[in-house]
Amino acid sequence: MIEKTKVFTEEEEILIQKFLRLKTDAGSHSPSIFTLKQKLPELPIKIDACFLSNPYATDLFLNYFTKEIINTGRIRELLEFYPSQNQVIAEIIANFLKINPASVFIGNGAIEIIQAVIHNFVKKKIVINIPTFSSYYEFAQEGVEVVYNKLEKSEQYRLNTKRYIEFIKKHKPDTIVIINPNNPDGGYIEHHEVKVILDQVKEVENVIIDESFIHFAYEDNSFNPINTSDLLEQYQNLIIIKSMSKDFGIAGIRAGYAIMSPEKITSLLKNGFLWNSNGLSEYFFRLYARPDFACDYNKVRVRYIQETIEFINELHKIKGITVYPSMANFVLLELNNGMTADDFVTTLLIKYGIYVRTCSDKIGLVGEYVRLASRTKDENAYIIKSLNDFFNS
Amino acid sequence: MIEKTKVFTEEEEILIQKFLRLKTDAGSHSPSIFTLKQKLPELPIKIDACFLSNPYATDLFLNYFTKEIINTGRIRELLEFYPSQNQVIAEIIANFLKINPASVFIGNGAIEIIQAVIHNFVKKKIVINIPTFSSYYEFAQEGVEVVYNKLEKSEQYRLNTKRYIEFIKKHKPDTIVIINPNNPDGGYIEHHEVKVILDQVKEVENVIIDESFIHFAYEDNSFNPINTSDLLEQYQNLIIIKSMSKDFGIAGIRAGYAIMSPEKITSLLKNGFLWNSNGLSEYFFRLYARPDFACDYNKVRVRYIQETIEFINELHKIKGITVYPSMANFVLLELNNGMTADDFVTTLLIKYGIYVRTCSDKIGLVGEYVRLASRTKDENAYIIKSLNDFFNS
Repeated sequence: MIEKTKVFTEEEEILIQKFLRLKTDAGSHSPSIFTLKQKLPELPIKIDACFLSNPYATDLFLNYFTKEIINTGRIRELLEFYPSQNQVIAEIIANFLKINPASVFIGNGAIEIIQAVIHNFVKKKIVINIPTFSSYYEFAQEGVEVVYNKLEKSEQYRLNTKRYIEFIKKHKPDTIVIINPNNPDGGYIEHHEVKVILDQVKEVENVIIDESFIHFAYEDNSFNPINTSDLLEQYQNLIIIKSMSKDFGIAGIRAGYAIMSPEKITSLLKNGFLWNSNGLSEYFFRLYARPDFACDYNKVRVRYIQETIEFINELHKIKGITVYPSMANFVLLELNNGMTADDFVTTLLIKYGIYVRTCSDKIGLVGEYVRLASRTKDENAYIIKSLNDFFNS
Repeated sequence: MIEKTKVFTEEEEILIQKFLRLKTDAGSHSPSIFTLKQKLPELPIKIDACFLSNPYATDLFLNYFTKEIINTGRIRELLEFYPSQNQVIAEIIANFLKINPASVFIGNGAIEIIQAVIHNFVKKKIVINIPTFSSYYEFAQEGVEVVYNKLEKSEQYRLNTKRYIEFIKKHKPDTIVIINPNNPDGGYIEHHEVKVILDQVKEVENVIIDESFIHFAYEDNSFNPINTSDLLEQYQNLIIIKSMSKDFGIAGIRAGYAIMSPEKITSLLKNGFLWNSNGLSEYFFRLYARPDFACDYNKVRVRYIQETIEFINELHKIKGITVYPSMANFVLLELNNGMTADDFVTTLLIKYGIYVRTCSDKIGLVGEYVRLASRTKDENAYIIKSLNDFFNS
């Protein structure tokens, strides 16, 4: 096994070195597919399985976009004119979600909201569960104490609600962050459990729940979407953050929103965040709030969930890896063959053209891990075939 | 005259009331054309002369975009994938401008950069020339003293360099803001004068020069673009901010950049601003740095400048208004007929379908003013015809 991974041609070795340099330059996030394609056009990427996005939703958006924007010539106004202001778009979303427009904030992707919230509301101490999405601690400003709540490998990195609440009560942070389902492992906290936590952390000023992957979670075979947008009424300290990139397959558009108390939003809008949408994201948000699109979208959402379940079932059959439980559109894989995550990523890329996310930079993981995204049915089949080939040969 | 402006039909009066309500809701910025079209579809807007954008540049961008992105199907990757990180795009621009990549910062429109700079670098005191673009003082955070340097009507709102330097030396701010050409009057400070100022304000920590309209300025009949991007080498306190919306006609894309010291950029990137581009703005920035596009762009830039000069010449012939000197793609008009700016805007909109920007909310202007954008040759002709009709009837 180890031997095989060393067998690269000279050209492959050069490619590997170039790829590793790009990766170092990109810091704590993977280099984008654009950057890779531009700087390393010779890299044979067949499948970007770093990329956490529903491809069928991209198809769907593209259908609407082609029909309504490209074919009608409306693309010109999207490019030429300023988008509407933050509050105008917030109102559209609020009407759709049937919540107070003053409690919706629009972001240029969820990442801008994470930045805004961490910079503006975290005062002294933030509790972050690890492993996690690194921006939550990277954005913490000087003077803020970051306290890590370590998710346990022995519990498959699931959040233990009881211990978590004790941890919060002990550390008394002003801010806590829960990603649900969690990134990078996909661990899911059921809706009733979320409420148990919220009931116990009322003294925490900011309870951030990042629901960027919630559209891939389900609690029964109906696959109905989990709706938490009405929780703010009861829990005023709640800040729900939603990326649209993953579930709607439109990372390039940069669209996200948050639900939080009107007081918090007013303080953000008071000096900034006026025109942080763009023509495309405004079109998307207006589409998002339309019943015809919502209905079509739900079909591709359920289809993708079902295919992801099949994909994960197949992964479980592969020897040499441990598959952690996930309710997201990706899985955390632990390598049991003695290889490092970084070497595995490079080998998979060079030998099979599959780009997966190393978790070697993720704090809180014990062992060697990669994060693997679910893609289209055909791509998933190719990934399974390649992994079988790799681990069996 | 006054009488005519009072003669509205009942339908027009209702429209006016609805329009004024929308305007109030939009705060210190005009409601966008999207918002107006959606909320007031019955409003007969023929020309958006609030909108400060080169329409020929939009045509040009649209040609490239259609050929390279729409017709090739590459639109999918722009929508689906994450754009490159801030520094990757910064490098592309820096190579084009032949400056240090570490001194370029990408923004989701210039407005995001203004927000970032004002929030992160202004410590105690900021000097702002008025009239100005309101975000510069609106974004100032609590505890920051905003000191206004009043541009004089008797000097046609031009910046008096000598008095300005004295003002700075007296008030000792940590930050000063110069918009060149200025918004809303288009007043221009020649390149050699900018250097005179920079030589005298070396003790100021942040010298913001907003060059969002500089592509419309010229110093001789060659209409060569004014280039200040190399000034940072000599003046480390300089922060040049450039919107791409106006000169390239792509406000919907949200693209802007800044040139400032690598230390300032590092401190911004340290906790945020990672993915603040989008698929379209990344495509635009890559296009911006291409010689073929640059050459085509310069033609539409010069054409638009020449037509704007003709437009301003025609405006000078209209009795009832004073036209202030402008080197931007708009002019500040003072009304001499006893009408308020707000009434004039409403009348022009309802009677002629021309949407102009009232300056009634602009601090530092003495009198009644509107800001009028130069549009296409045909639109400019319609504006001239309408103004003549209005002021002569």
